[in-house]
Amino acid sequence: MGGRETVIFLALTLLFCLKAAEASQCSTHGVPLVRNISELPPDNYGRPGFSHSTIAGSLLHGMKEVEVWFETFAPGSRTPIHRHSCEEVFVVLKGSGTLYVASNSHLKYPGQPQEFSIFANSTFHVPVNDAHHVWNTNQDEDLQFLVIISRPPMKVCRHKVVLLKTSTCGGGDHLQHYARSLFIYDDWFMPHIAANLKFPIYWDEQCFQTPAKDEL
Amino acid sequence: MGGRETVIFLALTLLFCLKAAEASQCSTHGVPLVRNISELPPDNYGRPGFSHSTIAGSLLHGMKEVEVWFETFAPGSRTPIHRHSCEEVFVVLKGSGTLYVASNSHLKYPGQPQEFSIFANSTFHVPVNDAHHVWNTNQDEDLQFLVIISRPPMKVCRHKVVLLKTSTCGGGDHLQHYARSLFIYDDWFMPHIAANLKFPIYWDEQCFQTPAKDEL
Repeated sequence: MGGRETVIFLALTLLFCLKAAEASQCSTHGVPLVRNISELPPDNYGRPGFSHSTIAGSLLHGMKEVEVWFETFAPGSRTPIHRHSCEEVFVVLKGSGTLYVASNSHLKYPGQPQEFSIFANSTFHVPVNDAHHVWNTNQDEDLQFLVIISRPPMKVCRHKVVLLKTSTCGGGDHLQHYARSLFIYDDWFMPHIAANLKFPIYWDEQCFQTPAKDEL
Repeated sequence: MGGRETVIFLALTLLFCLKAAEASQCSTHGVPLVRNISELPPDNYGRPGFSHSTIAGSLLHGMKEVEVWFETFAPGSRTPIHRHSCEEVFVVLKGSGTLYVASNSHLKYPGQPQEFSIFANSTFHVPVNDAHHVWNTNQDEDLQFLVIISRPPMKVCRHKVVLLKTSTCGGGDHLQHYARSLFIYDDWFMPHIAANLKFPIYWDEQCFQTPAKDEL
């Protein structure tokens, strides 16, 4: 094999290995049943002060009805103002901060939110479709929690689409996905109809593949 | 008011207060959105070495799609061998122990289980309908974890009943409840058809009320 062929061969081998590694990150095959949370790779998905690991996920671990996330917010950082039509429970492991919830999903915009202090060893859940965000308002310590969320992305939830009729998203076969999608608001008085759809969620982007039409 | 009337009045007042307290434990009204997990009342439901608190529950907090429990097992104590047709994720907070899982739901009995070491900061999920139990095999420390479970008891899940066709339970409108019920085994070789149905689950007994027929 000449020098040129060797380079091409090595490049193809490297490409194959990279593709194989990428595929294994998005496959449930070979994932151990018991996993050390400390060893799960965290990522910030381009958001400074944020860290996310999927403890049990639809795409990574084959979950169909619930997902569990482990997230950390550095002092001053926060989630966007957002809503979703699935249930969400938080268990605060460390730090403190403020939860903002606008329970006005019947209005045309979220409106002025209520404020709640959250703290280590506290729990709270966010009512379905209530706009909310969580803010690490403690300047001295990280805010760390587990997030439990229902309806992983591949699940068909057509019956809930009616709740999201004010969204700007189109119709058709893809409507089912909106049940687990994020709708992000610039502020509390942004109309629901102008909120930005985020689907798939940041940490599912790498592995998400649109299901075949006959699975819809 | 004479002495006898005073005693009757006080007895009636006490009875009223006890009934009111019992009702408030089983109502979602007035439950604060943010709750301190340390202040949730634990119970052992007659099982020595066991402690359970419902962090977010269907009957106590109005959850419809997920529940979160906080449980502690003293050294040597364990869950029964059981299965259920809902998803379950564990996050181990403290201690260590052994998970036993028999992934043979296609056989007539669970069969010899696989053993997995579990430890603080580990996570695992139990595949739907796999018989399993968790045992605190560490003689020196409590085993403490969060349990996340899908399909709270009041949700209709008729489509899953087919998975439980080997149970001894009858048919009719109540079939839907089996989707979240426990089936308990005396040992790993007890036939599925002989497993004992436990519904409602121990901590839901006090508050559980059969839904009206037209809600089924």
